[in-house]
Amino acid sequence: MNSLKKMILEHGEVKEGNILKVDSFLNHQLNPEFLYRIGEEFYRLFRNEKITKILTIEVSGIALALTTGLFFKVPVVFAKKTVSLNLDKDVYTSKVFSYTKNQVYNIMISKKYLDKDDKVLIIDDFLAEGNAIRGLIDIAQKSGAEIRGIGIAIEKGFQQGGRILRSEGYNLKSLVIVDELKPGSIMFRS
Amino acid sequence: MNSLKKMILEHGEVKEGNILKVDSFLNHQLNPEFLYRIGEEFYRLFRNEKITKILTIEVSGIALALTTGLFFKVPVVFAKKTVSLNLDKDVYTSKVFSYTKNQVYNIMISKKYLDKDDKVLIIDDFLAEGNAIRGLIDIAQKSGAEIRGIGIAIEKGFQQGGRILRSEGYNLKSLVIVDELKPGSIMFRS
Repeated sequence: MNSLKKMILEHGEVKEGNILKVDSFLNHQLNPEFLYRIGEEFYRLFRNEKITKILTIEVSGIALALTTGLFFKVPVVFAKKTVSLNLDKDVYTSKVFSYTKNQVYNIMISKKYLDKDDKVLIIDDFLAEGNAIRGLIDIAQKSGAEIRGIGIAIEKGFQQGGRILRSEGYNLKSLVIVDELKPGSIMFRS
Repeated sequence: MNSLKKMILEHGEVKEGNILKVDSFLNHQLNPEFLYRIGEEFYRLFRNEKITKILTIEVSGIALALTTGLFFKVPVVFAKKTVSLNLDKDVYTSKVFSYTKNQVYNIMISKKYLDKDDKVLIIDDFLAEGNAIRGLIDIAQKSGAEIRGIGIAIEKGFQQGGRILRSEGYNLKSLVIVDELKPGSIMFRS
């Protein structure tokens, strides 16, 4: 998606530890019209998958999942992060390891909002090692729902999450893949 | 907003402690088309205020602020919650007391995304005692921005936040005001 590459080149900041900050349009300040275009692009990529529900994870996946939901006209469910493991029988839970924070957190989705008849599109802003996506896949599988697609805005191609998910057969599509991050230089896969 | 009253009556759940759960369309599962209509309504209410920026607070304000931003065509900035006080000079911070969690948390907005030339619309899902809104007002004031409006989806009229903010002269508009919450009975102000 060329407009996303352009936004990243113009507004992205490369930080130590292979961090790409896109706070000016995606992770702190949101550019509503641009995020609407991203939702439209995810719709174009997955429109034939008979999606009934969009899954994401708080906080930064919510905006993209919502604009995508405006095109699919289906509900969006965001997994909530919890410090303690919720033992409520009415929720699906999974554990996610965060590299950036170096800690494990729990995520949960109420059983009311996901079940075996759902055909799910998972949406998130970033894919690196794939831990958050693994948590969402785990929850979708526990519910019996079918995972029809995974849509990522920015994939870090130099980390292994995307490669492994594709090798397992997941229908993963990233709007841009970043192959190298250096201060002043961001290389995209063509 | 009659459609919001209808959604609350059909899907809201009253819990002990005057809690109104609207997880099926606003706080866990999102109904994108309905939230788009809420954004349109906030635009109708504040369209003449020359808004340059929409402020909200993670997590549950993001979806509404984003759909509102689609109509205003201005950036949305969400305040981030942090456990520790961020002493970075590049951020505005404030403290918010949460009644539901009985704890104080810090919120922050980067100085990059808010300044004295901004005319701000604050958006949030709920207003009860008004603590989260006070935090956003505090940050907006620290930045020198002008607060032109406060748009709330659901105000709890039996708590004092809305009454006090109006008495102070804030241009506060709530799409619905709930005056009484009992299991099986939700009373709206007409």
